[in-house]
Amino acid sequence: MGGEPWRRTDTTLADGRQLHYYDPPGGPVRDARDERPLSPVRTASELRYDPLLDTWVVVAAHRQERTYRPAREDCPLCPSRPGHPTEIPAEDYHVVVFDNRFPSLSDATATSVAGRAGRAGGLLATRPGVGRCEVVVFTPHHDASFADLTPDAAGLVLAAWTDRTAELSALPSVTQVFCFENRGSEIGVTLDHPHGQIYAFPFVTARTARVLASVRDHARRTGRNLFDDVLAAELHDGRRLVAENDAWTAFVPHAARWPYEVHLYPRRRVPDLLALDDDERALFPPLYLDLLARFDRLFATPAPYIAGWHQAPAGVGHDELALHLELFTIRRADEKLKYLAGTESGMDAFANDIPPEAAAGRLRAVAR
Amino acid sequence: MGGEPWRRTDTTLADGRQLHYYDPPGGPVRDARDERPLSPVRTASELRYDPLLDTWVVVAAHRQERTYRPAREDCPLCPSRPGHPTEIPAEDYHVVVFDNRFPSLSDATATSVAGRAGRAGGLLATRPGVGRCEVVVFTPHHDASFADLTPDAAGLVLAAWTDRTAELSALPSVTQVFCFENRGSEIGVTLDHPHGQIYAFPFVTARTARVLASVRDHARRTGRNLFDDVLAAELHDGRRLVAENDAWTAFVPHAARWPYEVHLYPRRRVPDLLALDDDERALFPPLYLDLLARFDRLFATPAPYIAGWHQAPAGVGHDELALHLELFTIRRADEKLKYLAGTESGMDAFANDIPPEAAAGRLRAVAR
Repeated sequence: MGGEPWRRTDTTLADGRQLHYYDPPGGPVRDARDERPLSPVRTASELRYDPLLDTWVVVAAHRQERTYRPAREDCPLCPSRPGHPTEIPAEDYHVVVFDNRFPSLSDATATSVAGRAGRAGGLLATRPGVGRCEVVVFTPHHDASFADLTPDAAGLVLAAWTDRTAELSALPSVTQVFCFENRGSEIGVTLDHPHGQIYAFPFVTARTARVLASVRDHARRTGRNLFDDVLAAELHDGRRLVAENDAWTAFVPHAARWPYEVHLYPRRRVPDLLALDDDERALFPPLYLDLLARFDRLFATPAPYIAGWHQAPAGVGHDELALHLELFTIRRADEKLKYLAGTESGMDAFANDIPPEAAAGRLRAVAR
Repeated sequence: MGGEPWRRTDTTLADGRQLHYYDPPGGPVRDARDERPLSPVRTASELRYDPLLDTWVVVAAHRQERTYRPAREDCPLCPSRPGHPTEIPAEDYHVVVFDNRFPSLSDATATSVAGRAGRAGGLLATRPGVGRCEVVVFTPHHDASFADLTPDAAGLVLAAWTDRTAELSALPSVTQVFCFENRGSEIGVTLDHPHGQIYAFPFVTARTARVLASVRDHARRTGRNLFDDVLAAELHDGRRLVAENDAWTAFVPHAARWPYEVHLYPRRRVPDLLALDDDERALFPPLYLDLLARFDRLFATPAPYIAGWHQAPAGVGHDELALHLELFTIRRADEKLKYLAGTESGMDAFANDIPPEAAAGRLRAVAR
């Protein structure tokens, strides 16, 4: 993409997976080759239809053997060193995105499973688990976190998320692109090196389908957009605002499910990352880095968190859904986690011990 | 309830909470009194409306200080001993149900919060967190588990669940009664003593609302009941059946979300526990105890699990919803848990590493 303030270099790993370097303009030539003797990736993902919940579940048996908490010196996301090749052939990098070696969803799965699709149609429908799962490595520094990035480096990650959304959305197999980060062993992260993931789903997720139904119901009743009205109501109420700048607003939602939960919206409603303008791109890193730094200061040790971009699926709800990021921690006190047990996992009924106004007040208080 | 094969005795704890003993007929007189100097229960639960997901979230600040992993000798669910009064005044018992001292939902909350209801209506609506939260103690034996119960004892628990469903459903504040058990510290259980919980919600849960929408859509398209058709399809397919008897069928669902997940249905569709007939009641304990014993044998140590009864809410979907129990573990291998991270908690998109047919085969293989 000429004229962009970043440069992408593509390469192919030894097993055929794609890897993309995202660098500032004028960065080094990326010609390192992956010399590892990798066996080909084998995937056998299926989508199973759940007729009671009207959604799809991914069944991915090959993932049971995925890499699980390797020793620090075996980190597959660090730069390669002589005698220690990793997933990233280069000896240094800025931001890297590559195909997950243990993907839940893969276009390579299509041929192997396609013949079995439809064998049990109707209520017990099955489809091949096509789509993509990518890994986004935020920094070459193993012990850093996203919050340690410079604004320029965070802007490069935003550029990578945007570029991946554009490329993956254009694939015939892909309906919805979800860029997210899981941080912390408490939520099951198996690699400590700062990284996120991208899931390119072949269906509209249950969460997005529910939200879209709410948006359409609200439009039928009021003629207005639900996201516009929610954002206006939160700004008017004001008690749950956490931080803002000229382009972005961060607040704890009125009905937060998680002990500390922040929704970050551009002031201007846009459907996806592609629609952000230059100002919005420039003003995202400082506010997001500020929020992450506050999450690091909530407790005696940095909080585990989940952060994810909600954006309109390809060709679905473009004029109705609003791009936003949801950031939350499952930690409710220094030594206590919120677990999803019977009521949440069984009934999708959430109880939150921290009043959203108290959470917002605490997040305001821990500003640097 | 005269003529029942069990007897209930009611008492009141020192802070005004209700406690119910469920005993076999002819059991001991229950006249022990709670002599503890308990301060009154204070609750301040609110329901917050989530306009994007069209559901309610419970905010219960007073729960942040709830009892958390007490030492064995301080177990509040063991029988009282001289000098060691517990939540249960008696020195022995069979099954006991009492009001949770730290309830997410409480009818006592109505007066304290009612005045604030409606202060922010519309999109940011708030209601008092009325309803009930009860604790069900399955056995006086601290180190036992539900799977250790005799069929008669398990039948007494079933009687208690049924009686509680009847009594709680009749409360003006209550819409839906959910009886469930969380077992194992891995899912956040804070008391080791074998017990379950009952949530009596003042709204239809999001999960049940979704299922009811699917049932109604299926009826519009086919004229048939979705639960009937799913059960028939699973029986016809057969690969995921785990166990059955003359009244009950247990199978791993086609689109299981969890590593090991079993749905247990009465063969005859009924809306709730109250509608089970004598044969169904008599045949539930042996099959359920068998399933729990299999979960205990899946791994080197007994699996943590969540088990919950799905039943029709009061006055909602009575002719459409089917009573069933859902039992699942979050453990996927001896030392590995399934975590709900970005895709599940963010997008409600589940990936399962264990094919449901393999899970069913393993559950058949570990039968005693």
